[in-house]
Amino acid sequence: MTDKNSIAPEMAKSAAFFDLLEQETKDPPGVTRATYGAGETRAHALAAELAQDLGLEVTKDFAGNQYMTLPGIDRAKPAIMIGSHLDSVPHGGNYDGTAGVVMGLAVQARLLRLGRRLKQDITVMAIRGEETCWFSTHYIGSRLAFGELSADEITTCRRIDTGRTLEDHMAEEGFDPAAGKEGRGHLDPGRIRAFFEPHIEQGPNLIGMDIPVGIVTGIRGTLRYKSCRAAGEYNHAGAVPREFRCDAVFAATEFAQVLERHWDDCDRHGQDFVCTMGVFNTDADQHTMTKISGDVQFTMDMRSIDNDLLLKTDTFLREEADRIGHARGVEINLGSFANGKPATMDLGLQSLLGDAADTLGIKHANMASGAGHDCSVFANQGVPSVMLFIRNENGSHNPDESMEMDDFEKTAQVLATALDGLD
Amino acid sequence: MTDKNSIAPEMAKSAAFFDLLEQETKDPPGVTRATYGAGETRAHALAAELAQDLGLEVTKDFAGNQYMTLPGIDRAKPAIMIGSHLDSVPHGGNYDGTAGVVMGLAVQARLLRLGRRLKQDITVMAIRGEETCWFSTHYIGSRLAFGELSADEITTCRRIDTGRTLEDHMAEEGFDPAAGKEGRGHLDPGRIRAFFEPHIEQGPNLIGMDIPVGIVTGIRGTLRYKSCRAAGEYNHAGAVPREFRCDAVFAATEFAQVLERHWDDCDRHGQDFVCTMGVFNTDADQHTMTKISGDVQFTMDMRSIDNDLLLKTDTFLREEADRIGHARGVEINLGSFANGKPATMDLGLQSLLGDAADTLGIKHANMASGAGHDCSVFANQGVPSVMLFIRNENGSHNPDESMEMDDFEKTAQVLATALDGLD
Repeated sequence: MTDKNSIAPEMAKSAAFFDLLEQETKDPPGVTRATYGAGETRAHALAAELAQDLGLEVTKDFAGNQYMTLPGIDRAKPAIMIGSHLDSVPHGGNYDGTAGVVMGLAVQARLLRLGRRLKQDITVMAIRGEETCWFSTHYIGSRLAFGELSADEITTCRRIDTGRTLEDHMAEEGFDPAAGKEGRGHLDPGRIRAFFEPHIEQGPNLIGMDIPVGIVTGIRGTLRYKSCRAAGEYNHAGAVPREFRCDAVFAATEFAQVLERHWDDCDRHGQDFVCTMGVFNTDADQHTMTKISGDVQFTMDMRSIDNDLLLKTDTFLREEADRIGHARGVEINLGSFANGKPATMDLGLQSLLGDAADTLGIKHANMASGAGHDCSVFANQGVPSVMLFIRNENGSHNPDESMEMDDFEKTAQVLATALDGLD
Repeated sequence: MTDKNSIAPEMAKSAAFFDLLEQETKDPPGVTRATYGAGETRAHALAAELAQDLGLEVTKDFAGNQYMTLPGIDRAKPAIMIGSHLDSVPHGGNYDGTAGVVMGLAVQARLLRLGRRLKQDITVMAIRGEETCWFSTHYIGSRLAFGELSADEITTCRRIDTGRTLEDHMAEEGFDPAAGKEGRGHLDPGRIRAFFEPHIEQGPNLIGMDIPVGIVTGIRGTLRYKSCRAAGEYNHAGAVPREFRCDAVFAATEFAQVLERHWDDCDRHGQDFVCTMGVFNTDADQHTMTKISGDVQFTMDMRSIDNDLLLKTDTFLREEADRIGHARGVEINLGSFANGKPATMDLGLQSLLGDAADTLGIKHANMASGAGHDCSVFANQGVPSVMLFIRNENGSHNPDESMEMDDFEKTAQVLATALDGLD
């Protein structure tokens, strides 16, 4: 690599942006940038300032997604897009999502410094509302951009901290939920040549392999249940014989173990599957040590690259919930699920990135993404899409999330070099 | 039964007292009479008023237990005592505990009406703090009365709603925690001829058998764990491979199922045992659907008439907690337990009550008490003790708890007749 083509000169500005963003959205421990909340909006404003300093065109869509464009020679050609989200989980880390936007801006800055115009526009998209924790639904910003979020979700999903609807929060930040409800959309898949989403890995695989860059082959689909409930009967912990008990805790814990045994089966059959019960609660207003619990509420989050497996799992779990509930006098109701379909990353773009990394002598690994990402929305719209993973320590969705700027630079260099090749 | 010996004339006053007490301590749904709180203190005041109307001697000990005495012919003789507690669980029923105090006062009222003096004093004791839910420790009032509550419990147990110590709350109600800490006590077991505790059954056995009165043979001991914890690691629900997960929910639910399988083993071997995990919670400040949970807190309440079985269960569960925790990278810490020893009811008093019921033609059944009661403290002090159960519907520790005045009257008649015989 010649010095000229290096992205190194852009790194000081990237690092300064990460620092500034952390400072402006800190909420110890970590940062908080709620979907359609103050932190996310501040992050979008800071990104816009940086883009304007670079002389990029900055626009927003009706959903508040922000587009920062370096015009190409022929503006009629389908654009190259780079993007990720700027929201975070509560008390999350500084790099999850953000790294993709900052990397896109660094790639544009390098082209500007080099005085190169690409044949087509290159647009960095800062996406709203990727973190499911806020409204208990996934990919809000990217789905709105393609007119794919249902009116029902917009009017009924409530933010966990405020209890107010997505519609409310969108309007409060100055955006247009009505356009979302009508399914208008903003992006046309046919007008996007390729979508790149750089993102921290969030898992320990690259750390374990001592490799800085991952090239993603596919993104797991999700099957999520946000309001499962085991409803039994509150009763005295000592006075009630076993056959009269309707104990919601023992019913729900048996159900949890059935789910884990199903996971064992998937592993044994070589089927890709993970599952998590992140919330598992007796009712704080009514539970005590000396009372049989009549109520457990829990969530389930399952992921697989095989959507059939996810949907078969739903059938299996509902049968098991009925069986366990019937035997125990407890009603186990799983409620509805949200299904985010798995996505396959474009093989051509994977090769392009791999070749660029090889040319640069940067170690890289092909890997599936266990986590869900906006990129799957683009891929499922038929846009040739791919993700780059940046090695990071301590996972993500926690304040200890950590990424080395050296790994960020290597990944940015791979992306920049690949774009040189693509153009 | 001749009309003269009937306790029926006392029932109107008993029913009126239940109504008044419900009205004065209501907290919809149900009633709330917190240990050393407003509701309990109000209940004691109402009982004192009723006792004073009857012309009984009313005194209190340093712990706030209230003694309502009909003097006997020879006041130097050991007294007959009837008693139960006046506190309730949050949003509990109106009869749990109260029925025993009201029945004692009815028995005294009958003697007064008949102009009978017993050979010895007959004292009704309204006991403080029986419900474990408030301070997470058992039999506070009765143990204080015998100098058996530890200074450590008095200074460290905190009320669940206020977070303040037992010491604080005792002092606030005008009592003397220092006397408790010194283990002074108030009652002398040698000065009590017999202790009777009438109480609603709290379980469905009498309802199932269609029998109004139970005569208790023994009271189960308790083994209680108020602060168990499974500590894992918060992490991303999708991005982290199974072998790197330290999932507190799956660890705690496996542990719960091990406990339930242990219960199966006890049942198979004919060993008396019940267990309850009344509280089972991920951390509301940190949990979300899309995050592996790093923390589950739970309680355990186990009961048996066999204390050796309880203590062996503790050893077994600690080994299992270590085994499960080790395999999963989760630390399962059961914390300390409180052990309330089982108690055997006096055979002579059981016969006395059974004979009285037979004479009256009132159907009765002998049965063990699954729930713990103050009576076990008296029994373990060497006082000849027995309990009477009154049939009730819908269990207890809930607002639907229900008792028919007709069953209350039948039980009161058995007690009154037995006392005539004892004297």
